[in-house]
Amino acid sequence: MHIHNFSAGPCILPQQVLRGAADAVLDFNGMGLSLIEISHRTAEFEGVMEEARGLVRELLALPDRFEVLFLQGGATLGFYTVPMNFLPDGGKAAYVDTGTWAAGAIKEARLVGTTEVVASSAASNHNHIPKGFSVPQDAAYLHVTTNNTIFGTQYHPYPTADVPLIADMSSDIFSRTFDPEPYSCIYAGAQKNMGPAGTVLYIVDREALGKTGRKLPTYLDLSQHIAKDSMLNTPPVFAVYATLLTLRWMREQGGVTALEARNRAKAELLYAEIDRNPRFQGHAVPEDRSWMNATFTLTEASDAPAFDHAWTEAGISGLTGHRSVGGYRASMYNALPLESVQALVDVMATF
Amino acid sequence: MHIHNFSAGPCILPQQVLRGAADAVLDFNGMGLSLIEISHRTAEFEGVMEEARGLVRELLALPDRFEVLFLQGGATLGFYTVPMNFLPDGGKAAYVDTGTWAAGAIKEARLVGTTEVVASSAASNHNHIPKGFSVPQDAAYLHVTTNNTIFGTQYHPYPTADVPLIADMSSDIFSRTFDPEPYSCIYAGAQKNMGPAGTVLYIVDREALGKTGRKLPTYLDLSQHIAKDSMLNTPPVFAVYATLLTLRWMREQGGVTALEARNRAKAELLYAEIDRNPRFQGHAVPEDRSWMNATFTLTEASDAPAFDHAWTEAGISGLTGHRSVGGYRASMYNALPLESVQALVDVMATF
Repeated sequence: MHIHNFSAGPCILPQQVLRGAADAVLDFNGMGLSLIEISHRTAEFEGVMEEARGLVRELLALPDRFEVLFLQGGATLGFYTVPMNFLPDGGKAAYVDTGTWAAGAIKEARLVGTTEVVASSAASNHNHIPKGFSVPQDAAYLHVTTNNTIFGTQYHPYPTADVPLIADMSSDIFSRTFDPEPYSCIYAGAQKNMGPAGTVLYIVDREALGKTGRKLPTYLDLSQHIAKDSMLNTPPVFAVYATLLTLRWMREQGGVTALEARNRAKAELLYAEIDRNPRFQGHAVPEDRSWMNATFTLTEASDAPAFDHAWTEAGISGLTGHRSVGGYRASMYNALPLESVQALVDVMATF
Repeated sequence: MHIHNFSAGPCILPQQVLRGAADAVLDFNGMGLSLIEISHRTAEFEGVMEEARGLVRELLALPDRFEVLFLQGGATLGFYTVPMNFLPDGGKAAYVDTGTWAAGAIKEARLVGTTEVVASSAASNHNHIPKGFSVPQDAAYLHVTTNNTIFGTQYHPYPTADVPLIADMSSDIFSRTFDPEPYSCIYAGAQKNMGPAGTVLYIVDREALGKTGRKLPTYLDLSQHIAKDSMLNTPPVFAVYATLLTLRWMREQGGVTALEARNRAKAELLYAEIDRNPRFQGHAVPEDRSWMNATFTLTEASDAPAFDHAWTEAGISGLTGHRSVGGYRASMYNALPLESVQALVDVMATF
C-alpha cells in the first residue's frame, strides 16, 4: 500500500532525492568511495557545497549582498546565533510571538539583550497572526516566524516594518515566493521543504554583520563561516548533499513559483473540505491558515476512534496533531503530491 | 580497482555500515518510508537513538554517572560548549596545547574564563606530547586532545592529573580502551571511528554539571540535552543512524579491545617500514606516535613525484599530508583493514 506521508517534520522528500542520496552513500559520483567516507576538502564535496549554495541564491533570487551557509544545530541554535550576530550590545530587538518556535527564539534573545515582544497571539492559543502592531524605531530588527507548524498559521502577506526583518522560515521556505529585500537574515532548519534533518540554512546580509560590539565564539560567528565558504569545520556532508538533490528537484519542478501554485492548490483542497464538512473544524482563523500545516479537530471528540481507523486504513501517516492543539495536523510540504491530499479529503468526505 | 582509503576524516567506514545506511534511506525497517522522512518522535527513531546511546555505554564500559548525547556543531562548537558547562564563573581551566585542535579548544575557552596553558609542544611543531607538567590544584579541569590528527601524535599512556579530565577524543575514541573514571566530559566528532560527519558525541558526568553559576543558552546547555534524552530538538537522524550501524559493527568485531589489537598491528606495520626505509622519516617522536595518523616525509623532497605516482597507481587514496607538516599522512582508523596498510608498506618498500 502506498503511504501518504503527512509527517510534520522530518517529512516527505521526493523519491528521486531518496534514490540519489542512497546511491551516493554506496558510491559517490563513480569515485569508488561513499559520499560519507571522503574528505569534505575533496573537489567533489566542495562542488556539492558550492552548487547547493548557488541553487539557494538562484531559487530565491537573492540579491548579491546575501551569503548562503549550511550549518548545524538546527533552528534551536539559530535562536541564539541570530541575536548574538544582530542584536548590538546595549541595543534592542523586536519579536512577534506566534507560537512555540517564536517563543523559543524570544527565550534565547533575552539571554543576549533587550527583547521586546511587540505582538502575541498567545491569548487565543495562537490561532491567528497578530496584525497592526508597531515596532520601535530603535529596534535592531523585527523577528518573525513565517509559518507556525504546531498551530497551523502563516503570514499572508509577509510582515513589513521600518526596521530590518529577520525570519525563521524553517517550515515554509521554498514553498512560496517572497521578496528578500527587507531581510538581514533568514534561517531555516532543512527538515521540511529543503532536505533531511542535520543542517540549517542561513541567508545572511553580510553588510549587516559585525555591528554588535560583541566578541563571538567561533561556531556562532556567521562572519567566520562566511569567510570559510560554509566550510569552517567539517560540514554535515550527507544532509548537505541530500539538500542539494532536493534543490535540484525544486528547479526541475519549475522553481518556487511552480511549487507555490501546487501548494496553494493542495491547501485550498483540504481547507474547502474542513469548511464544508460539519464534522470537522479548523483551528486557525481562515485568513492566517498555513498552506504547510492544516490543524483541525473533530466537532465530536467521540468520533476520534472511527476517524483514526479510517485514515489509517487509507494509508495515511503522520496525521496526529500536536498536543498544544490536539486533533489533527495535515502537513503538506513541497514533496507531498496533490493525490495524497485528495486521499485525505476522500476519507473526510466519506466519514 | 579496490581503493585503499587513508582519508584523515571524514574517513573509511565499514562496508556493511554503508549498505545498511543506504538501505534505510530507501526504506527504513520495512516501514515503506525513508529514515530521513519520518518524525524523530516515532518509536522507530527513538529506538535508534536509545540503542546508539546504550552501545556507547557498553563499548566503553561507562560508569552510571555518565550520560551519552549525540549533538551537532562538531568539536568546534564543543570547544565552546565545554567551558560554558564546566568552567565556573571566576574559575580557571588548564589546557595542554598539542596542536591545531587543542589550540582551537584553548581559543574558545579564553572567551569563557581564565584558561591556563600548562604545557605546549608548539616549539617543536607539535612532534611530541608534553610530559611532566603540573596542573594548578584550583583548575576546574585539565583539557587534553588525546590524538592529534595533523601532527600524528597521541597520548600513550592517557594523561593523569589531580583535577578532573576533559578530553577531545574526536580522532581516537573507540580505537583503544581507556579508563573513564578520571573524566568529567569526553567529546568527539563522529567522522573518524564512529560514523559520518554531522553528529558529535558527548559523554558527560551529570554530577559535574550545573556548577558554573552561568545561565546557558538552550542548545549549549548539556543539562537540557540530558533532560530530553538527546532529543531536545530534531537530531541529525541520518548521522545518528549510521553511527548506530558503526557501533553495532564494533561490537561484532569484538569491541574496543579487539579493535585496539588490530589498530596496534596496523600502526606497528607502518612505523616499522618508516623506521627501516631510509627514504622516509617520521614526524612524531616514536614514543608519542599516533596509531590513527602516521605522519612522515620523504628524506629527499625531490622523490615526491615518483612516490606520489607509485601510491596512486596502487589504489591508495587520501595520503597527502596536512600543510602544517607537509609530506604524507596515513590515517588508519578502525575500518581500515590491515591489507590496506600492507599495500602502502609494499609501495614504500619497493620504492
